[in-house]
Amino acid sequence: MDYPNDQHPGAPVRAGIPEHGRIPKYYAVKARIGELVEGLSEGQPLPTERDLALRYEVARETVRQALRELVLEGRLRRAGRGTVAAGPKLEQPLALASYTEGVRRQGRRPGRALISLDRFPCPEALAQELGAERGEPVWHMERVLLADDERVGLESTYVTVARVPRLDAEFDPDSSFYAYLADRLGITFGAAEERIETVLATPREALLIGTPPALPMLLIHRVSRDTEGRRLERVRTLFRGDRFSFTTQLGSQG
Amino acid sequence: MDYPNDQHPGAPVRAGIPEHGRIPKYYAVKARIGELVEGLSEGQPLPTERDLALRYEVARETVRQALRELVLEGRLRRAGRGTVAAGPKLEQPLALASYTEGVRRQGRRPGRALISLDRFPCPEALAQELGAERGEPVWHMERVLLADDERVGLESTYVTVARVPRLDAEFDPDSSFYAYLADRLGITFGAAEERIETVLATPREALLIGTPPALPMLLIHRVSRDTEGRRLERVRTLFRGDRFSFTTQLGSQG
Repeated sequence: MDYPNDQHPGAPVRAGIPEHGRIPKYYAVKARIGELVEGLSEGQPLPTERDLALRYEVARETVRQALRELVLEGRLRRAGRGTVAAGPKLEQPLALASYTEGVRRQGRRPGRALISLDRFPCPEALAQELGAERGEPVWHMERVLLADDERVGLESTYVTVARVPRLDAEFDPDSSFYAYLADRLGITFGAAEERIETVLATPREALLIGTPPALPMLLIHRVSRDTEGRRLERVRTLFRGDRFSFTTQLGSQG
Repeated sequence: MDYPNDQHPGAPVRAGIPEHGRIPKYYAVKARIGELVEGLSEGQPLPTERDLALRYEVARETVRQALRELVLEGRLRRAGRGTVAAGPKLEQPLALASYTEGVRRQGRRPGRALISLDRFPCPEALAQELGAERGEPVWHMERVLLADDERVGLESTYVTVARVPRLDAEFDPDSSFYAYLADRLGITFGAAEERIETVLATPREALLIGTPPALPMLLIHRVSRDTEGRRLERVRTLFRGDRFSFTTQLGSQG
């Protein structure tokens, strides 16, 4: 809720905009469709492009551009040949809590689908992040993240084979890796450094996550240590920017 | 650094991609231009669209699409009529530290340009966030954020007039609001809740920040309290997604 802007989708013209500011026609349409969407509950269909074009007396391409952005922003989603109101973004805590816990807290069912599990010789930069020897074998496990069977992210985990020797044999890829480390190996997380940025999905990522290509994603890099302070894993997780937001509590030490 | 993917821009075709995966032609070109950019230092120019089209034997529109994405990702930036290699993203800590401190830590010079300063009667939702009475006067201060004179963000601060009565008369908008609160009013931050997400710039925002419209931005919502636990301000800050990343340290309490 960003008063006053959220209540005035026409905000671009309010006080403060430079003289030369103009609102593109598609954006005016987007603002009005945005108001329509406000009135819909999750999953309710929007009128067709054709009807919207007639209603606002614009070309269908203008309506299409407005819908494209509303989809990228996660306010609408494609459903079959139509468009429906999307649900609110999931809020994940930026915390040592795993994806699993975060999604459960939202009342959604977490899931994961294994894409690949490879061993490869550790390159220099990764060796530093893992506190490993260059060239020693490391696992690269890539999983699609699910929430109630909806594909919402893509996670790459890098960990040394020395640390987790039986990952390929023992670990169920559709379970929590952190729970596995704790329960089977007695390894618990002590601390992590995270970096969050926005990137565009590559065609491969878009394909695996099932998003429109070039959808803005939230990319989180994590390098973590166990409770003994030993370097543990490096994780690269891509979350759909239209489906996720991240929250954090800052204390005065922050 | 995301081994192996960063070293293999062709990653979309490696093991794990669904059978039906295809790389769009523009993306193959983008990957090769990305390799060119690797070899350039900040500010160095890229060959012209025409030269790139000839070199890769593709249409100029294909080159344009590749360049558009590299610009959105902050790897290239427009300079006059050409395109040059961009610098690395600025890293801001997710902490109570102000924008000012964060940018200084990067060795950049922070600045702010006032867009608007209004008083308005506090609406319900904002009243809760500010611990204010509905309808009591609140300030809305909107500033463009600068780093070495480059426009990198847009910040809206909401605070009650009761808390900061002389904001309009006393405060220099091109200075740190937090320093002002501390030095002039003896108010220091105790804690904040932040939410971070990615959104598209509105035409107005793009105009004010000087970005291409629909550039993915990082939006940070902050609701903060002072050291006595009293609700203090609500801030909505939009950062260029191509220029910023955010870092955080997670402890076991996290």
